[in-house]
Amino acid sequence: MSAGSTKEKQISKAVIKRLPRYRRYLGELQKRGIEKISSKDLSELIGYTASQIRQDLNNFGGFGQQGYGYSVNYLYDEIGSILGLDKEYKIVIVGYGRLGQAMASYISNNESNFKIVGIFDVRQIIQDVEFKDAQVMTCANLAGFVKHENVDIAVITVPAEKAQIVADTVSEAGIKGVWNFTTVDLDLPEDVVVENVHISDSLHALAYYMHDEL
Amino acid sequence: MSAGSTKEKQISKAVIKRLPRYRRYLGELQKRGIEKISSKDLSELIGYTASQIRQDLNNFGGFGQQGYGYSVNYLYDEIGSILGLDKEYKIVIVGYGRLGQAMASYISNNESNFKIVGIFDVRQIIQDVEFKDAQVMTCANLAGFVKHENVDIAVITVPAEKAQIVADTVSEAGIKGVWNFTTVDLDLPEDVVVENVHISDSLHALAYYMHDEL
Repeated sequence: MSAGSTKEKQISKAVIKRLPRYRRYLGELQKRGIEKISSKDLSELIGYTASQIRQDLNNFGGFGQQGYGYSVNYLYDEIGSILGLDKEYKIVIVGYGRLGQAMASYISNNESNFKIVGIFDVRQIIQDVEFKDAQVMTCANLAGFVKHENVDIAVITVPAEKAQIVADTVSEAGIKGVWNFTTVDLDLPEDVVVENVHISDSLHALAYYMHDEL
Repeated sequence: MSAGSTKEKQISKAVIKRLPRYRRYLGELQKRGIEKISSKDLSELIGYTASQIRQDLNNFGGFGQQGYGYSVNYLYDEIGSILGLDKEYKIVIVGYGRLGQAMASYISNNESNFKIVGIFDVRQIIQDVEFKDAQVMTCANLAGFVKHENVDIAVITVPAEKAQIVADTVSEAGIKGVWNFTTVDLDLPEDVVVENVHISDSLHALAYYMHDEL
């Protein structure tokens, strides 16, 4: 299958949400030297039903062969390419408090095709700190930097009350994606893709299941 | 409705996942002094369809009145109590690197009924650092502390290769819930509730939507 055929078809959000998880498990199998896997074994590992797995992967033309199963390497690479992980993305981090620092290390240690090109913070004391090849700069430079460097993604880890203004700044400067760690739901133009990480939603779901068992 | 009636009914995971989001928006409305809202207005705000909203909230006996809409305060409190957010939870943080520190501030600033009672790290240099009322302790004390203090939740922010051993330690010591920030899917007894925050899945979904638009 080609990227073209994927795009002709509308893939549901639910399937897209599951793909990174498939890829994560396939990566684990790769590390363990496992070359092929049946939908049944994949099902036991991931926790989706085998029929769900076959259905999901059929969306992309299906990579399994009857009686052989899926090739781990091939499937890992294909899902990566469907997700766009065979490309490089330029990232800026806006807000270099604890969470911004944690995300900077996470990205630079785990996500080789997401490259941190700049870090921004309003606090003078944090500016000029260096992180790998990037330097912490004042937010006054943010718009110009995003435009000039053609930055793809802004990671927003500022306090809630600053979130929308940062979002406005980067979107006017031509950002393509926003990874939002604040509690605010951002108002952005339609051509800017937003992914929200609502930490609180996850903690509250945990509370529900605990409370439900008590 | 009573807590009892909720428990008699099986509520789907998908609905539970949506409840924290309802509560978050209702909290915003509260702050703005808004007392009632129709399912239609709630729909515009949250982005689910009005019929989805009515269906979701009907799971809990329904709190809306025909022609009046939902009472914001009542609904906020009820959802909180369904989620178990009217209770207090004792939390330990295991792994006090950048992410652990970020989560400690997040919880203590935003989640008043989740109380951090202890913080653990293997690194000598980090021990004895204080965070509000909690002190950073050596991991050798972890099991004893969880048992003695009757801790409810362990936040795991250690490196991936240490995640399972920490999970084993706290679950043997009687932990009830684990909030897992590592990339590892933990193997835990059935009576321990786990909520995974897979940061990478969110970043990869973002990449997909960006790549899809390029």
